Parts: sequence; structure tokens; C-alpha cells
Amino acid sequence: MKIKSKQDYVESLRKQPINVYFMGERIADRSTFPAFVPHINSAAKTYEMALAPEFEDLLTAKSHLTGNRINRFTHIHQSVDDLIKKVQMLRAIGHETASCFQRCVGFDAMNSLYITTYEIDEKYGTDYFKRLEKYLLKLQEENFMLVGGMTDVKGDRSKRPSQQSDADLFTHVVEKRADGIVVRGAKAHQTGSVNSHEIMIMPCQAMQPGDEDYAVVAAIPLDAPGVTLIFGRQSNDERKTQGIDAGNPEFGMVGGEALVVFDNVFVPWERVFMCGEVEFSGILVERFATLHRQNYGGCKGGVADVVIGAAALSAQYNGALGATHIKDKLVEMLHLTETVYAGSVACSALGAKTKSGAYYPDPMLANCTKHNITRMIYEIGRIAQDIGGGILATLPAEKDLHNPEIGKYVEKYLKGVDGVSTESRMKVLRLLENLTGGTALIESMHGAGSPQSQRIMYQRLGKLDAKMKLAKKIAKISE
Amino acid sequence: MKIKSKQDYVESLRKQPINVYFMGERIADRSTFPAFVPHINSAAKTYEMALAPEFEDLLTAKSHLTGNRINRFTHIHQSVDDLIKKVQMLRAIGHETASCFQRCVGFDAMNSLYITTYEIDEKYGTDYFKRLEKYLLKLQEENFMLVGGMTDVKGDRSKRPSQQSDADLFTHVVEKRADGIVVRGAKAHQTGSVNSHEIMIMPCQAMQPGDEDYAVVAAIPLDAPGVTLIFGRQSNDERKTQGIDAGNPEFGMVGGEALVVFDNVFVPWERVFMCGEVEFSGILVERFATLHRQNYGGCKGGVADVVIGAAALSAQYNGALGATHIKDKLVEMLHLTETVYAGSVACSALGAKTKSGAYYPDPMLANCTKHNITRMIYEIGRIAQDIGGGILATLPAEKDLHNPEIGKYVEKYLKGVDGVSTESRMKVLRLLENLTGGTALIESMHGAGSPQSQRIMYQRLGKLDAKMKLAKKIAKISE
Amino acid sequence: MKIKSKQDYVESLRKQPINVYFMGERIADRSTFPAFVPHINSAAKTYEMALAPEFEDLLTAKSHLTGNRINRFTHIHQSVDDLIKKVQMLRAIGHETASCFQRCVGFDAMNSLYITTYEIDEKYGTDYFKRLEKYLLKLQEENFMLVGGMTDVKGDRSKRPSQQSDADLFTHVVEKRADGIVVRGAKAHQTGSVNSHEIMIMPCQAMQPGDEDYAVVAAIPLDAPGVTLIFGRQSNDERKTQGIDAGNPEFGMVGGEALVVFDNVFVPWERVFMCGEVEFSGILVERFATLHRQNYGGCKGGVADVVIGAAALSAQYNGALGATHIKDKLVEMLHLTETVYAGSVACSALGAKTKSGAYYPDPMLANCTKHNITRMIYEIGRIAQDIGGGILATLPAEKDLHNPEIGKYVEKYLKGVDGVSTESRMKVLRLLENLTGGTALIESMHGAGSPQSQRIMYQRLGKLDAKMKLAKKIAKISE
Amino acid sequence: MKIKSKQDYVESLRKQPINVYFMGERIADRSTFPAFVPHINSAAKTYEMALAPEFEDLLTAKSHLTGNRINRFTHIHQSVDDLIKKVQMLRAIGHETASCFQRCVGFDAMNSLYITTYEIDEKYGTDYFKRLEKYLLKLQEENFMLVGGMTDVKGDRSKRPSQQSDADLFTHVVEKRADGIVVRGAKAHQTGSVNSHEIMIMPCQAMQPGDEDYAVVAAIPLDAPGVTLIFGRQSNDERKTQGIDAGNPEFGMVGGEALVVFDNVFVPWERVFMCGEVEFSGILVERFATLHRQNYGGCKGGVADVVIGAAALSAQYNGALGATHIKDKLVEMLHLTETVYAGSVACSALGAKTKSGAYYPDPMLANCTKHNITRMIYEIGRIAQDIGGGILATLPAEKDLHNPEIGKYVEKYLKGVDGVSTESRMKVLRLLENLTGGTALIESMHGAGSPQSQRIMYQRLGKLDAKMKLAKKIAKISE
Repeated sequence: MKIKSKQDYVESLRKQPINVYFMGERIADRSTFPAFVPHINSAAKTYEMALAPEFEDLLTAKSHLTGNRINRFTHIHQSVDDLIKKVQMLRAIGHETASCFQRCVGFDAMNSLYITTYEIDEKYGTDYFKRLEKYLLKLQEENFMLVGGMTDVKGDRSKRPSQQSDADLFTHVVEKRADGIVVRGAKAHQTGSVNSHEIMIMPCQAMQPGDEDYAVVAAIPLDAPGVTLIFGRQSNDERKTQGIDAGNPEFGMVGGEALVVFDNVFVPWERVFMCGEVEFSGILVERFATLHRQNYGGCKGGVADVVIGAAALSAQYNGALGATHIKDKLVEMLHLTETVYAGSVACSALGAKTKSGAYYPDPMLANCTKHNITRMIYEIGRIAQDIGGGILATLPAEKDLHNPEIGKYVEKYLKGVDGVSTESRMKVLRLLENLTGGTALIESMHGAGSPQSQRIMYQRLGKLDAKMKLAKKIAKISE
Repeated sequence: MKIKSKQDYVESLRKQPINVYFMGERIADRSTFPAFVPHINSAAKTYEMALAPEFEDLLTAKSHLTGNRINRFTHIHQSVDDLIKKVQMLRAIGHETASCFQRCVGFDAMNSLYITTYEIDEKYGTDYFKRLEKYLLKLQEENFMLVGGMTDVKGDRSKRPSQQSDADLFTHVVEKRADGIVVRGAKAHQTGSVNSHEIMIMPCQAMQPGDEDYAVVAAIPLDAPGVTLIFGRQSNDERKTQGIDAGNPEFGMVGGEALVVFDNVFVPWERVFMCGEVEFSGILVERFATLHRQNYGGCKGGVADVVIGAAALSAQYNGALGATHIKDKLVEMLHLTETVYAGSVACSALGAKTKSGAYYPDPMLANCTKHNITRMIYEIGRIAQDIGGGILATLPAEKDLHNPEIGKYVEKYLKGVDGVSTESRMKVLRLLENLTGGTALIESMHGAGSPQSQRIMYQRLGKLDAKMKLAKKIAKISE
Repeated sequence: MKIKSKQDYVESLRKQPINVYFMGERIADRSTFPAFVPHINSAAKTYEMALAPEFEDLLTAKSHLTGNRINRFTHIHQSVDDLIKKVQMLRAIGHETASCFQRCVGFDAMNSLYITTYEIDEKYGTDYFKRLEKYLLKLQEENFMLVGGMTDVKGDRSKRPSQQSDADLFTHVVEKRADGIVVRGAKAHQTGSVNSHEIMIMPCQAMQPGDEDYAVVAAIPLDAPGVTLIFGRQSNDERKTQGIDAGNPEFGMVGGEALVVFDNVFVPWERVFMCGEVEFSGILVERFATLHRQNYGGCKGGVADVVIGAAALSAQYNGALGATHIKDKLVEMLHLTETVYAGSVACSALGAKTKSGAYYPDPMLANCTKHNITRMIYEIGRIAQDIGGGILATLPAEKDLHNPEIGKYVEKYLKGVDGVSTESRMKVLRLLENLTGGTALIESMHGAGSPQSQRIMYQRLGKLDAKMKLAKKIAKISE
Repeated sequence: MKIKSKQDYVESLRKQPINVYFMGERIADRSTFPAFVPHINSAAKTYEMALAPEFEDLLTAKSHLTGNRINRFTHIHQSVDDLIKKVQMLRAIGHETASCFQRCVGFDAMNSLYITTYEIDEKYGTDYFKRLEKYLLKLQEENFMLVGGMTDVKGDRSKRPSQQSDADLFTHVVEKRADGIVVRGAKAHQTGSVNSHEIMIMPCQAMQPGDEDYAVVAAIPLDAPGVTLIFGRQSNDERKTQGIDAGNPEFGMVGGEALVVFDNVFVPWERVFMCGEVEFSGILVERFATLHRQNYGGCKGGVADVVIGAAALSAQYNGALGATHIKDKLVEMLHLTETVYAGSVACSALGAKTKSGAYYPDPMLANCTKHNITRMIYEIGRIAQDIGGGILATLPAEKDLHNPEIGKYVEKYLKGVDGVSTESRMKVLRLLENLTGGTALIESMHGAGSPQSQRIMYQRLGKLDAKMKLAKKIAKISE
């Protein structure tokens, strides 16, 4: 099956039933389940926009394997221009969804594996790279949606995988067979997993000798026996079917994360891309993190553009848009948004070719980008809530607006400037609430690694010794 | 009726049915309606703690009218010590509720009116002060709960009350009768109104000649004919009955704000405390704002203590509490919390006696306190979400934990350190989610006035001329 | 000799020659040496203002020993009111000097010793408290200027005193005699030392058994044999005699810090107030730090008021004061200034009586105050430089203004608005440069302890356990 | 004359005597005057490094006019790669000088004029572009140093050029002759002017009809009759000849700014590139500003690398480099540095070709870069002063170290860890002082436009309308 349109995509989900739960209930048809639909709509944009001529240049690319035009989310970056287009694509889809469209995780997983399996093979003479290329061909051809499954649940953070009191707290190989491996464990926070087709499990940290069973990379269909998904709660998730009250009724909020459990899941060898090469775990994580951190100025920059627009609209609707302090706050939001975007562009512009042929962003600047996200997106949200006003927190329900007794009061008293309906005002306020509260922000903090993980990278990449030498030279210190 | 215990309080609410709606439905018994119960529980703490010997000194005071021991929330400040105890009381109740307990609004309304009616009478020979003292006696005696109703819905912010296309967008007198007045309009964001007994309406900005009908202060029982309340939505309000998922199942979040509509409500003269004295509107608002801004380092400081505790607990539960960067982040939260608390204490310590005899906090420092709240509470929330981890955004529901098929997975994979149950870990994560997302923060931004309102006060109180003179003297500029 | 007036003070310095160097030269008469004069003028304000009726309430106090009216800088705090007046006094002198007036160090040393010697005696039956009281009487009577000498030079920070390769890197007792002790070492950053009369040496960190020789407190006249002072460099110290170019020509900048060396200095026992009681070193440092951190919102708040005034004046002089963004930046400076001031007031208001009878500020809030100083004073400086403009960095010299060939150009082209002379504009710009650059800021960072020392206090005083219990209670966690 | 080496450059300055003053005295030989030498040394690096093979790719380029290898500072950007190399070049020279090397101003002037004169000619049929190309050829051939003279002294900021009480407060044409024009006025803050050969005067803001005489661009040799330079004061400028105390003894601090006065200076028409085309003033300023704002993440990023190195070194020297909080502060400095660098790279990467053929950076992101500089460089300085310690502010003079009586004390007591001399420690502390105080920071604030000028650009380029449309679409608002 080749997925081209939104219809194809939704149909494909319907045809691949998976074992998924939400709020304690098993969901029969994930393609129409209301709590999932906004996330499906968001991911569908990655298919829809690829068909739109004005976005073709950003949303598609030419496969280096086949020369065919493919969805960019299945592409291996072949140039700096590809890296920059990735960022621009993310911002463009952010504009259309004001949410997370989830597909970059699998995209980044494939690119990081492309680079890393090449190096494993080089060292060990394995054939992971060839296996991966074959899998990539299928991905480019079928255009299915792949989750990049990195984050283990990790249990006690002060202990390593093998020290945990429960060995399964990091996903690991429990059996090696002639035809494949059996894995057990769970991956947390799996963005877009309930509306994906496959998951690529990967280790989530550097491993040491003794951790071989934990150094495993494998592609697993989400309907494989033994796979269970438990969909997490989001802010206001019970409003998803409530129209105006939902805020962003079509595209929801963030990525619809789930806990994905692997209870003795079998994977054939052709789908295994690392198995025991512990010293490559750390570098794979770093590669994935760099590629993923590259994104945030793009996608969050795009979402932030909508936050700015919504904040401005809310001020226009209550007559405050002309106030100097409002204009200045919008300028601050613009500035923060461009700052995070600049990071994504810069790490792309300084990207370089790897041995595998794939291009790879500058890790320092990719890291820098994500670190700013953990601060600036929060500040953008804070300013938006300043502009939006207290009504963000106290707005009555859409049902109140439509109630025969009190609807007239809501209509009358929540009116802003002439010429704008109370309903429109409520819509933009609910959108602002959706964009600036709870789950929406937490993703900015922890997606692609928590802040401390970036600071550790700075310690590693910061070349402090070289900088100390510069200072010695300037200060004329010879010893 | 004299309300002493929580039981008295809940019973009093049951006995005073009001016209209140939530999500498009009229609520028959407000005292037991699930969406209101957490707010009732929070307000009830102001009664309960007053009966506890260890809190007596903070929660009660000696009436300057009768010499009786009264609930401090009905007291007129008689000293700097009273002002400081107010702040300490708020922090203490914040510790018990981690929410808004709502009663300070009426408290601050009474104190600001006490000072201002004295001055109106002095100028006009009216008897507002005497009326107010009589009302105060009743309040101290009956210990009922009074909402301070200041914020009008305001319509188009670029226009004054009388310029609005709908004259009712600011609450105003529509008829003066021999026995009283009739008012129409609405007050937005009325904290605690659904579980209060009366509301004191007050103008929300400085008025000019021509705005006389808008310069009105009056005490109105919430069950008066023509009064309708529409309860606003909060983050995750549908989780209020969902135990663990509620986060703070007993005390909820913020103050349960409602839109209170006055549709030709009659108020007898004895309950009218300002009527047309336009030049006192501005000063009343300033007084109320100062008294209300004084609070935020107390109550939010108390809540922030719980945020710190919850963040530390979440780190203890996943084994990260020993990490240096976690400890440093907790220190930063402590620092921000003490900074806002210091503001509240300082404006109290420099409080002064007014002509009316009531003590009044330093307005500059009260203002400063609230302005820091609009930044620092957000930063505390941001750091808490950093410590809490991505799981804050993706945690499955309590129902998943208790589901027969997947409960074992949730139990197993969301386990943290040994010796702590998954359920406890989920509880603290849900509490952190509740405390740091959406509605919880917006109150910090807009309660007691949006940031710009504080900046305007700085322009008024900042004594720039005097400071320029100091600079001239130091720089030896004589011209 | 009793010092009352500025004249008395300057004369007293002249009469007590000390061994002091600046820029490699020994200074014969410190009372008139140009590089010292601004610091003398600043300290003299503590005498002058005590004689001014409008400042009498702040600058003087009633001795609890004699009942006499004394200079507040020699007072032991007898009440919360005393603590608050200390802060108000510091802000008032800051207004007059826009600099550091240095005397609080000795003031805080005496108060911290008063509390601590009482406790040492209580434990050991020593008579330090009585000795100190006698010394205090003399101080109150003679009103001389005492330096509080805490900071050792510390050598290798990763090592304890006794581990240093040079035993003298922390000041210590090298000999105990019948009549007294002999000390060796050095104290760094001694504010006001070149224009003081005596120094009170104190240990600078907690000591452990084995460090007995380093746990020494003693009062030493600065003209004692073996004492040498080396005056440090400040920003633009060569401009001190250059009128306009000096910026603050009368009061200079910060405190005129010196390195004070003790090369086998003898101290009679009556001037020794701790000698070997290692377990009291830490608490003495904490006491001194609390009392000293209490100050910063006062003195720096006062200086910041002048910075605000100077920034506003510079904008008035170039016609930009009416610009909205300038007004908003001044508001931000006001806000930061009041925030630090609030800290000082708050820790004073929550001060408490110690066993010795002396009042002591709340340590958490004193700590909080100083921590904000290390951030907010820098931000105030940054904004001031924003308002002041690039001309702050490129202004020609006063000599250019007065040069016969080019003076006309300077006069003509650096003119601002009509009615203000170029000279006045240059004066305020130089003042801004003086107040916001280099040495002026560093004092805010490191005086009374570097930022990390405050963070360590937060870890100690933060009561994390209690806060975690609050969170458990709210979240209904029982285990 | 073709300038290739440092020697050529210094010699060229000696051979072109100009009318320059410092501290009220006329300077006979600018090439050896101590106050100018550090700035000469810094600018000389742009010549020296162009000759070094390892920097050839960055410091030189191929002229699009002649195909010759030229100094990049005389190049017109021919590609995105050129824009990125500009930024990398600036960071590299920043590493070598830790100061401002001044030559980018003329560089940016030429590029902005190249783009703009092309457009003027297109509209008016003038031949400015051809004149400019001829001048460019000479510049590329002779490799002399050109100042970009934009900033007028501006007098009363609330008034336009023609409203000033003195018509000369903006530089203007006072006479048009057959052979050329005569100009009068002054340009302030002229970076590198005392060690340059020519100045390109340009208008500093948008002009309106009536301002024709102020819309003038012309290249003027600095030794032209009527040109006078007055060198401004810098922090600690009297230490420039004092070795260690100078901090950065070879390269000084910032750019050695001067006030350049034009007292009826004649310019032949071939050197006039705009004369009266008022509507192109604004766009020229914007072009120059964009090109100049592009730089700051490069040059200041390079300087910041040295600040980081110096801070780390100071911590190594006192044994604190291993402390966690020190390492974390260095990480923060790294993060801020990379953030500003990312801005410069990003605006270059998204640069585009103009009609003239020259490439031009993305104006939004260039603007964003500079705006971050005005905050982050200050924060980097603040952290550096935190790490450096109080000794930054109180360090004795080098002369004290070498004094026969007290040198031993300085040597002994300012010693840090074993194996590092006190002298080395003093050197790095003085370097830190130099890099983080006064003038060094102000340049970051006001160079290439004060913060407000960037915020105005955000208002113009921010596309708020488009963003509001995005929000409407997401919120499903149709009206």
C-alpha cells in the first residue's frame, strides 16, 4: 500500500488494528476514536501538504536511492539545503496545525540510523546499513508513518539499566533466535504512536559493556503480537469533542503521546539494526538528539507564529491591539520566535556530510536551539497569557453560550469590539488557552531531551581548553 | 446564622440557593455539586483553621468594633502587625490547600471601603462609613463569605464606560428609588462567587464626570432576584471527580471563577456605599488593588512551597533528587518563592495608618510584589515542569492503572525507586500537572490586576523627579 | 577623641598614619590622597548626616549600654524597628553618595559578634562577650570607623585552610602569649579600610577541629606594627581627580577596597573575641552574612535610585524622555529597585531577638535579598546603558570640552535639547558611566558573599522535607 | 599604495597625518600614539590574518570585478557562502583580538551602498552605482581602511533634522558646486576612525521631502581639510600603557571610537553616491543596519569565546574549576554565545541576491541577532564576573606586584593554585575586568543600533496580519 492522501492515511490506520487503550478502555477503531482524531488530522497534514503544489518543494524530496519524488519525512538528507528545507517545512506545517504533527521522530530516527549503522558495519563488518537501506526503500515507497522509539521508562534514575530492580525498565533483548530476537520493555512518551504504523526502538542512553542486551535497534509493526499502547492524558483531553472549548478542535495539542509496551515481541533479523554493539548506543542517541533538536525552532517556531497571531487577535477583539504595551509584547514574542528559528536554520546551514553520505546538522547549534526552546516557548506562552487576559482562565463553556436561559448573558457580556461576534472571541481565547497551558508547554521542555541533557552536550562540545588557550594568548600568559 | 465550622459553612451554602450554571446546566444544590466542591473545601479551610489552636493567632483577630474574637478575613487591619499576620495567614492556608481559598477578595474590599468611605463622608457629609460599619458588624458576627466584585467585562478596551455601544458593559445604576437603587451589568472572574453569600460590587477604574452611574458600590446577596452566575471552565475541569487524575482532588485549582450577571437587581440604600462620587472611584480601585496585591507573596508563596515540595518529591520518586542540577533547580524555586514573599512582608511592614484608623500597606511595594508574581510564579512552574519530567504530559489515567488488562503494565513501567508505589508517583505527578499548567498560572498573571496596571502605578508612584534631583546633586549639575 | 563631624573624621585619619600603598607608592597622608578622598567623603556622610536633624531618627540610635544618643553604625539592634531603620538609613545615604559608604561592615561585625560571643561564653564560660561590650562602649563613645575583616585570600579554593601549601593564606594565630596573640595572614577586599581606624578580623568560613588557629576574632588598629594596606584598582581610578570625567567626583565608586596584610601583628587579649572555638566560626560567618546581606536592598536600592534619576536625566537632556519605550524602561528599573528594597525590609520585619538581646534579621529573606542583588543591579545597569546611549562609551574628555581648538566642536555637537548645556549633559553621562560599569557592579555580585554562598544557604534553610510533606498531604500520598 | 602587511598598514597611517585630538591634545603621529596603538593592532589583524594560509579562505575573497584575490573586508558578497564566511571570519578575528577590529563598518557600508545605489540609478538614471564601483575597485586594489560614518549627533531626539535649533546636528550639504559638494556636521561614535584612511558618510535615518540636504552619501579622506577627530574616552583608558593592568594590552577594548567633525569639507562629485534622493535614506539605513547586525554573533561570539576561556582560566587558577556550579555557569556562557552566533549564521544562510547582484542577509534574523546581543553579552559578562570573583574589583596594580616593599605580599597573598604564578593570575583577572566592564558592554548595546531600533524593525517585518490569519484558520473563525 502506498499512502498518498489523507484518506489513504486514515484508511491505513483503520486497516491496521492495534492494541491501544485510553482511560482504561480498549479502542476498537483507532482511525475514528475522538481522542485520537486531532492527532490523526495533524499527521495527515504531512501527507496533504505534500500534494499541494505550493508546498511541494518543502514537503517532498528526491530519493537518493531511487530518484523518485518522495515525502520529505522519509528522506535521507543529501545536502545543507535539505537540512534547511526540513526546518522550513516544519515551520510551514506548524502554521497549518498549531500542534505537533509527529512525523519528525521517525524521520530523525532513520537519518541517525543511516549514519550510525554505516559506522557499525565499518567496524564490525555487519550488514546493518544494507538492512536499513532496504527498510528505507520500503518506507519511501509505502510512505507509512514510523515512530522513533527512544525513551525508556528508566525506573530509578540513579541506577544504570542493569542495576534496576526490574530488568525490563529499559527495553532489552530477552532471547536471540535463528530467525530473530525477542524484546521486552516499554517506551514512554511515544509521540504519534497511536496513529503510526511501525516503531523503531532504539537505546536511550550510552551503554557500557555488560549492557549488550539493551543496545538494540529494531523496527516493529505496532500491530505485532505483544505490543500494547496506553494513550496518555493531556490538558483538557475531555474537551476534544467539545468544539469551541477544545481550543484547536481540528489538530488538538502536541503529539498524542502513548506508553508503548513490548511484552516478548518477536522481531526478525532483517528488522534489527543494532544488537549488542554497546559503544554505538551513545553516538546513536547523540545523532538522533542532534537531528531532533534541530527541529524545534522550525515546528515550535511555526506554532509560536500562531500563538502570536492568536494573542494579537484576542487584543484586536477586545480593543487593546493599539495599546503600546501590547504591541511591545507582541514584538517580544516575535523576537523569541525568530531566535529559536535562527537556531534551527543555523545548525542546518553549518551541517556537514557524514561517511554514510547523509548530511548532519551542527550538533552544538542544534543543541543550542533546543535549549532555548525550553525557556523561550514558556516565555512566549507567558506573554500570550498576559495579552489574552484573565478571561483565558474563566471563560464559560460553549454550552453556556448556547443555553436558552443564559446564552444571552454570555453573548452580551463577553462581547468585545463592535463587529466581532462573542463566539469568535471565545474561539480565539480557547485557542490561546490550548496553546499556552499544560501539556503544550511540557513538550517544549522535555521533547528531544530535557534541558540538562543539552547542558551535558555543552560540557562535551564546548572546547573549553581551546578557549582557555585563546584567553592565555590575549592575556600574554605563557605558562 | 453564625458560621463557625466547615459544616456550618457548607450548610449555609445549601440553605442559600442561587441561580448558578455550569456547562450550560443550572445547578440545583451548589453545596454538593462536584465541580464546586474543591472550591468549597478550599474556602472552608478559612473556617476550619480558625478553630485550630495552632493557627488561632493567624486566622483570628480582635474586632476593633466589639472586641470579640473574629475570623481575620472579616477584620479591619489595626496595626502593621495585622498586615504582616495577614500575609503569614495566607501562606499558611496556601500550604494546606495548594489552591486559592478566595476569601481575601471580600476582606480587601471591606478594608479598602473602610478607608475610602471615610474620606467620601469627610468631603460630602454622606453616611457611607456608618452604613459600612453596620454592614461590617454583621459580617464579623455572621462570618459569611463576601465576594469583592470589581472587574467589569469592559467590552471594547479602547473606550470608556459611557462610550461602549452597550451601556451595560460596565455595571451601573439604572434607577434610583426612595428605598434603594437598581443595578445592571456583570462582573467577570468572580473568585469564589459560586460558594459565597454576598458580593460587594465596586467600580473597576477611575471614573470621570459623566460616569456617575458607574461609580457605585453596593453589597448584594447572591440570591437576590436578577443575579445569575455562570461558572467558568478551568484546566482539566472534567477531571475534578476523577481522584488521582484531578491532581489536587480535595482543593482543586485557583478560585472557581464565575461571571456574575446583575439583571436589574434592587439594592436598599443601607447596602449602598458609594453612588455617583466619581472622583473616589480611582482611589478606591487603587486601595483595593494595593490591599489585594499585598496578598500574592503570601498565598502564592504558600502554593509555591507545595510546588517545590511536589517537584522534590517527584525527583525523589524517580531517583533524581540527588542530582546536582535538580538540587540547584529547587534552590532557584526557593529563591523565587522567598522573593515574592519578601514583597508581601515588606509592603506590610511599611504599612501606615489611614484617617479611618485602618492600616494600609505601602502601595509601591504591594505593587512590586504582584508584578514579580506575574513573572516568578511562571518561572517556578517552568522549573517544576523541568524537574517533573515529560511524564507530566503523557501520564496514563488512573483508570489505566486499575484496568485488569493493562494495569499491570502501568504498575510495572511507571515505577520509580524501590519502596514507592506507582500510585504515589502518579499522584504527585498529577499534582504537579495541576499546579503548573493553564488556569493555575493565569491567575498569577491577572489576579489583582494585569502587569500593565502595576507598571502604570510605578509611573505614578515612582517619584522620577526626585530621583532626577538626586542625580543632579551627585553629578554637580546646577542648572 | 570623639568623632562627630566630617572635619573630626578627616582629622582623625590624618592623625593616625597607616602603612598604605597605591599603585606601588606609599601614601604619606591618607586623609588628602586624591585616590582616597572620594571614599573618605562617602564615609564622612555617615557622620555628617547624623548631625542633620532630618536624618537624626535614621542615623542615630539610643545606646542600650549607656542610654546615650549614638551613631547608628555603632548600635546593637534592639528591635525590629532598629532593623528596619538600618535599611532606611542605608537607602538614604545611598541617595546622598551614589556610592558605598563602607561603615556597615564594622556595624554588622559588631552585631554578629555580640550574638555569637554570648553563645561562646555560654558554652565555654569564656568572657568574650564582656570584652566585646567593653570594646563596643569605646566604639560608641569614640565613634571611630571599624572595618569588618572577614574575607581571607583563600589560595586554592579546592583546599581547606590547613591544606594550603602556604599556611598564611588564611589569617591565623602564629603565637599565643600571656599578654595576647600574634596573627599572620591577609584579608582581601577590605572595604573602607584605607579610611578606617581599626579592623575586626574574623574567620571567613566554617572551621573544623584542627583549624583552631584559624578560628580567631580580634580587633586591630590599622596603624598597629605589621599591618600593611594595598589599595586595589577601580574602574577609571585615574580619573578620580578629573572633575567631570570622574563621573561621581565627590563620592567615587564602591568602597575603596584594599588588601590588608598582617605580618606578625600582636593583639592584646582584651581585643580577642574568639580564639580556637572552631565550631563557632561557621555560625559567626552566617550571622555576619545575614546582617550584611540584609543591607543590600537598602544601600544598593539608594544607589539604584540615583541610577534611575541619572538615566531619566540623560533622556531628558537628549529629548527622549517622552518616548514610551524609555518610560517603560524606567519603570522596569523602578520595579527592580523596589524588589531588592522589599527584601531588605522584609528580612528586617521578620527579625527576632537573640539570646544576647540583639535583634537579628530573618536569614532566609536576608539571603534572598542579596541573591537578587547579584542579578537585578546588573539588569538595572544594563537598562541604564540602554537609555544613556552609545555616547556613554565614546564621550570625549572634559579637557576636549575646554580645549581652545576643538572645545567649540564638543560644545556644538554634543548639545542635546535647548536650555541644557553640553557640560551638564556630559556630567550626567559620566555619572551613568561611573554607576553602571566595572567595579560598581562587581561589588553587587561579590559583596556579602558570592551568589553560590547564598544558594548554599537556601539548601540549608529551605526546609525541603517540610515542603515535601505538604505536597504529600495535598496529593493524599500516605506512604 | 597597496596595504598588505601590518607594517604596510601602520606605515600608511604614519604617512597620512590627520587632525586628531585625545584628552585635549592634538596627536602628531597617530601610528604610534599609545592610546591608539591597541586599536591599530586590532585592525592590523585584518591584514595579518589575510596573509596567513590557515585563514586565507575566510579572510580573502575573489573580487567579482577583477577576479583578483582581495581582502574580504573589501568584497561585495556574491553568495550565501560569502555571507556565512563573513560571520566565521569575524568570530576567528574575535578569537585573536578579544576586541573590535573595526573594519566591518566600511565593509557593510560598501555592500549596502552597492545594493542601494543600483536602485537609485534605476529610478533616477543617475550614475552613483558606476561611481561606487570605481571607488570599490580602488578600495579592493589599495586595501585601505574605510569607516562607515552613519550616526549623526542628533541633538534633540524628539525633533527631525530640519527642526533642530542648530542645522548642523545632522550632517548635510551646505553648498553644491560644479566640481563637488561642501558638507558640514559631525558623525559620532566612529569606530576605528583614528586609524582609518577614509570615511563614507551616510544619512542615519529615513528622510522626508524637505530633508534633501541631509540625504547625502560621500567618501571623504580623513585628512581632508576641515575634518577633525576627537577620540572618546574608554573604561580605564589611562591603563593602556600599563601592561598587565591594561587587561588586553595588545588589542585594547572595543573600537576606539571618535567624534568626526566636518567643518565645510569639500567632496568632488565622483565621491558622492547619494545627494538629495530622500526616499532612499531609510532603505540605505535599513540595508546597512541589516548587514551590520548580521555581524554581532560573529565578532562578539568570538570575543565571548575569550571571555569564557578567561573565566575558566581564572577558576582554574584559584582551584574552583572543578566546582559544579562553576562548570554550570560556563555552560550557560557557552549557550548564550552559541545562541548569538546561531543568529548570525542563520541570517546569512537565508540571505538572498539583490538586483545589484550582491547578496544580502535575511533582515528579520539579522535584527534578531543584534537584539539578543543587547541582552546576552551583558549576561555573559555578569556570569564572568561571578566566576572571576571579587578580586576583579579589588586587584592591586602591577606596580604593587613589582614594588620592593610590598611586592612580596602581593606575590604571596594573591597566589592561587600551586604551579601558577601570581602574575599569570593577575593577567587573566585584568583581562576579565577589561572584557566585562564599561565600554566593552556598551558597544554591544548600541553598536548597529540601539535595542529599540530593532524592535521597530520587528513591528515592520513581523507580518502580524498573516499570523492573525493563521490563528483564525486554526480557531475556525470565519468573520
